[in-house]
Amino acid sequence: MIDFRSDTVTLPSEKMRKAAYEAEVGDDVYGEDPSVNKLEEKAAEVLGKEASLFVTSGTQGNQIAALTHCRPGQEIILEANAHIFLYEGAAISAFAGVQPRTIEGNRGAMDPKLVEESIRAEDVHFPETGMICLENTHNKAGGAIVLVENMRAIYAVAQKHNTPVHLDGARLFNAAVASGRDVKEFAQYTDTVQFCLSKGLGAPVGSIIAGSTDFIQQARKWRKRLGGGLRQAGIIAAPGLLALEGNVERLEEDHFHAKQLANGLSQIDGLEVVNQVETNIIMVQITKENGSTEQLLDAMKQHGVLAGGMGSDCIRFVTNLDISKVDIEHALSIIQKII
Amino acid sequence: MIDFRSDTVTLPSEKMRKAAYEAEVGDDVYGEDPSVNKLEEKAAEVLGKEASLFVTSGTQGNQIAALTHCRPGQEIILEANAHIFLYEGAAISAFAGVQPRTIEGNRGAMDPKLVEESIRAEDVHFPETGMICLENTHNKAGGAIVLVENMRAIYAVAQKHNTPVHLDGARLFNAAVASGRDVKEFAQYTDTVQFCLSKGLGAPVGSIIAGSTDFIQQARKWRKRLGGGLRQAGIIAAPGLLALEGNVERLEEDHFHAKQLANGLSQIDGLEVVNQVETNIIMVQITKENGSTEQLLDAMKQHGVLAGGMGSDCIRFVTNLDISKVDIEHALSIIQKII
Amino acid sequence: MIDFRSDTVTLPSEKMRKAAYEAEVGDDVYGEDPSVNKLEEKAAEVLGKEASLFVTSGTQGNQIAALTHCRPGQEIILEANAHIFLYEGAAISAFAGVQPRTIEGNRGAMDPKLVEESIRAEDVHFPETGMICLENTHNKAGGAIVLVENMRAIYAVAQKHNTPVHLDGARLFNAAVASGRDVKEFAQYTDTVQFCLSKGLGAPVGSIIAGSTDFIQQARKWRKRLGGGLRQAGIIAAPGLLALEGNVERLEEDHFHAKQLANGLSQIDGLEVVNQVETNIIMVQITKENGSTEQLLDAMKQHGVLAGGMGSDCIRFVTNLDISKVDIEHALSIIQKII
Amino acid sequence: MIDFRSDTVTLPSEKMRKAAYEAEVGDDVYGEDPSVNKLEEKAAEVLGKEASLFVTSGTQGNQIAALTHCRPGQEIILEANAHIFLYEGAAISAFAGVQPRTIEGNRGAMDPKLVEESIRAEDVHFPETGMICLENTHNKAGGAIVLVENMRAIYAVAQKHNTPVHLDGARLFNAAVASGRDVKEFAQYTDTVQFCLSKGLGAPVGSIIAGSTDFIQQARKWRKRLGGGLRQAGIIAAPGLLALEGNVERLEEDHFHAKQLANGLSQIDGLEVVNQVETNIIMVQITKENGSTEQLLDAMKQHGVLAGGMGSDCIRFVTNLDISKVDIEHALSIIQKII
Repeated sequence: MIDFRSDTVTLPSEKMRKAAYEAEVGDDVYGEDPSVNKLEEKAAEVLGKEASLFVTSGTQGNQIAALTHCRPGQEIILEANAHIFLYEGAAISAFAGVQPRTIEGNRGAMDPKLVEESIRAEDVHFPETGMICLENTHNKAGGAIVLVENMRAIYAVAQKHNTPVHLDGARLFNAAVASGRDVKEFAQYTDTVQFCLSKGLGAPVGSIIAGSTDFIQQARKWRKRLGGGLRQAGIIAAPGLLALEGNVERLEEDHFHAKQLANGLSQIDGLEVVNQVETNIIMVQITKENGSTEQLLDAMKQHGVLAGGMGSDCIRFVTNLDISKVDIEHALSIIQKII
Repeated sequence: MIDFRSDTVTLPSEKMRKAAYEAEVGDDVYGEDPSVNKLEEKAAEVLGKEASLFVTSGTQGNQIAALTHCRPGQEIILEANAHIFLYEGAAISAFAGVQPRTIEGNRGAMDPKLVEESIRAEDVHFPETGMICLENTHNKAGGAIVLVENMRAIYAVAQKHNTPVHLDGARLFNAAVASGRDVKEFAQYTDTVQFCLSKGLGAPVGSIIAGSTDFIQQARKWRKRLGGGLRQAGIIAAPGLLALEGNVERLEEDHFHAKQLANGLSQIDGLEVVNQVETNIIMVQITKENGSTEQLLDAMKQHGVLAGGMGSDCIRFVTNLDISKVDIEHALSIIQKII
Repeated sequence: MIDFRSDTVTLPSEKMRKAAYEAEVGDDVYGEDPSVNKLEEKAAEVLGKEASLFVTSGTQGNQIAALTHCRPGQEIILEANAHIFLYEGAAISAFAGVQPRTIEGNRGAMDPKLVEESIRAEDVHFPETGMICLENTHNKAGGAIVLVENMRAIYAVAQKHNTPVHLDGARLFNAAVASGRDVKEFAQYTDTVQFCLSKGLGAPVGSIIAGSTDFIQQARKWRKRLGGGLRQAGIIAAPGLLALEGNVERLEEDHFHAKQLANGLSQIDGLEVVNQVETNIIMVQITKENGSTEQLLDAMKQHGVLAGGMGSDCIRFVTNLDISKVDIEHALSIIQKII
Repeated sequence: MIDFRSDTVTLPSEKMRKAAYEAEVGDDVYGEDPSVNKLEEKAAEVLGKEASLFVTSGTQGNQIAALTHCRPGQEIILEANAHIFLYEGAAISAFAGVQPRTIEGNRGAMDPKLVEESIRAEDVHFPETGMICLENTHNKAGGAIVLVENMRAIYAVAQKHNTPVHLDGARLFNAAVASGRDVKEFAQYTDTVQFCLSKGLGAPVGSIIAGSTDFIQQARKWRKRLGGGLRQAGIIAAPGLLALEGNVERLEEDHFHAKQLANGLSQIDGLEVVNQVETNIIMVQITKENGSTEQLLDAMKQHGVLAGGMGSDCIRFVTNLDISKVDIEHALSIIQKII
């Protein structure tokens, strides 16, 4: 199978498996797992934050941010197609008791002026604004990069209004590599950052939430409440560290493959690439008469190619660690044939 | 003072005060207040619902609807400028744990097709859709009437997807009177309805939430949790009943006054009426150079006229029981003078 | 009917009805109701607190205390039979997201040592202690007075651990009058106090929550979220003020009547007064063979006497404003006859 | 170090590391991880339940039970020293919005009669009883076994009142092995069961929550909300399966060691074993004058022996997979020396 459904599907490499096998471990609830500690230190350093915490998923990292930054009855500002809003089961309202206030973005980037207008004044009828959330790269916008400049401007607004900024950076390294900038440049305009080890970086499990030392101390308790306090977590943290140390630069390859694939797809009659491909995601509209997501995905699957459905006539391809140049060519020839 | 800030500001009439004075009362937590019981029966009958419950405010009625219909982690669909979303302190997320999913409406009315598209499929990432909320008349849309036909279409969508429909009918009677239709015609396309006794109807305090007998039984417990279980509530229910029985038809007067006022305002240089005035609300943009909400409201206040601010260059007038034809004329002449 | 079920059942006096009739009112959501403002000022002054807020019930006042003092995932310490724990529908957990930690008290008073032991250390497994709640008089303990000395000792513990103390003083005035002390003496050992106007004081509706100016400002928003923001609330605040000004001293009468009743009941074969009657509550065990709560209450009701059931073989009498010396004698003669 | 702090501290064996290394994996969010699927099938089968779900901790499993079984404003009945109540950060109230109602047990077992009395009648003041929680073995009661007969009786009460029963069986296999009964015999008297792979069974990470197919489907979404949806989870599920298949019977050894240790400790002057040692936990009171938990633990640590503190004068020893007969003897000789 050539699997383009997501960059979460990558299988751990031999090296990662070996890291798991050999991991020095301890009970992380007691703070005694050396592999976890090493990963957390490294992640904090890479982001330029005081401290970080290993969590089991991006969703867990995002929820912890809301639970720690906000109080019930507050509002969080985020882009209208943010992952936190669309794909986390309304956990933000169920657990943190906050109300999402969405702003339609441009390729995932919110207009700082609209962000400022959305911050609530003090009034007995109004929730307080508890947090501003950014997402970079922006998944639903097709892996779009939110520019450092946009983040800086929003952070300035947030500072002015004394509001914390959280970055859902599940694919932050894709943004950094594709724009040739250090992740610190992005992270500096946030209070907290979450990024995933298990997406483009290729680790089997886990994400990082980073911020100030004080934030991380509180986050640790929220993680425990969520059931994310693990025991010998080094078994998964060790491959995670490997991913963080070894698989960042190579994201360029995924981006190159994505452009290759987009290029090929755009030449196929009946398909149209609808996003500007900046990183590892390609959104394709089925323009062929009577074509449907379901039908196309089924046919592709029969020929060993998997992609993801995004509504009735749109599919998503995500390049990843397990996809080679040859896979791209093979997939293109198959899609060409069956469309 | 001529007070156009809201229809909530009306002072109780002599008759209402007398009703409070003479009210037959009992302990309503035990269900023994005859005035409350009479009001609840009457309200249910007027709406064509099985049962109803006296609550202390529209917000309380709306929150009870969410708490009773939904479970945490669900999503509610509502118009982007709905009162529940903008003016209830994010209580919907703080208490019921649900996430609002907003749809930009047209004069307060949501497109049934967009409503259907917003209902979530079953997927481990998605909240379930727990409730659809309508608002009629729609406050932020300038007292706009949501047509029975629109409500019917949305209700059909809801029924198909087995989702309850709640109507925030704080000003439902304005919609009914202005469109010459019985409130039952609107209420039939809902599972639950909240309306206010303390707005256009002129009662000092209170709202009604109505629905099935089973719903109301559960609602009663949520009201208790919210602290809305009162003792000798007849003191306020009796004027409420008077309002419901006596002040519905006369809303026509408020609507007539609103048109009169809108007409006058639209002839004043420097002001522009921006909504289509269907009921008792007029939204006015200050088009005069260097004019601001604050400045105009201050000047009006000095001459005994109050209105409400809606952002930096827009003010809102609401006609109500305490506003006469003479007041309208007087207010117009003052505004003309000071603008 | 001679109604001993609760002191909430009292009917408003002619004077109170007149106060409602004549109340100077305004829209309290705008802070413009003079009767509410007067009541809130008076209540704060009486308690020796900076500010107070009129709420619709004791439950609402208590919930607001938890919502304002605490964050979700915290624990509140309270007596094992506290009203907040037993009779508020678990609202404390549903809304404020806090966990009650109960301590078995002695006649409603918690041992300060046990309170201190129940305060949690800092540990990733532990909730933080968010609030300590007292109840005075203690309802379930039979209207028992919690001594000022006990409150002082618990407050000292709380101060030491930087934890706020809330007093559910639904019947605080009973405690004050019966022990010949000013309510301020009790209130000084609390951060916030709730008391009811609608119990012994005889007002038809309402309670007060009092505390610091900053607390009350936040409380005001939580009240709005709960749906407790009222319009022309003076209609009920005016009788409330009358109750607070006029009906405190006369609680002595209720206490005298309670002792009279207890004395009479204790001489009836088949009944045993099980609490030490300090204020207006009498708990009576049915010791007669085959006697049951249901049976006795039914028989009493047929003869025009109402009391409340507390489990299968215990009933509760509460003396109140509507009970006279003659009523006591009459009730005793009836119970004597039917037992 | 000889580490008696908990059975969570065990290091993964060579075999387990190899299982992680070789694990067949996939994306478990898509349900495609064969190792996870195999573990979940096996766990369900072992417990005699329809289905099960791999979660990252016992806390996560317990929280999922509350979130799935209950609605906010309900009450859960559990033993006064239950792990859910004492050690899960009040998450039960923060997330599920339920109020714990505790019953003092006898060696961890609640009296079924008290359970029944604690179930709430229907009344507007009362929370509904949403769930009954058992814990077996009972941690705080010193690894006490709750008898199948007690569980059957409580389950009968629960069935009668239509209330679900959840078992916090973090150490259920200890109970089963020590009493010579199949875990199914315990599990049959529950609706849902959580057990830990990472305690006595020795896996590095993870727990199981099991119940009906319908329950598990809902649980899967709550797990996602909590951030417990993992990707290539087989890396930890494979050692988990090994633990479940290979390390159950050997718990006998831990129990034998525990008795040995208890026997030795009870002969040391200045210490007293205060629990009846049935499984792998020993609770020891420091009876020596001026002895304190802190002092003793420190001295032991200097000699390479770790145990856990339980208050100021009590310590807890937990035998586990990494503790041998020789370790027991060595530890005893050290403690003897330093006390």
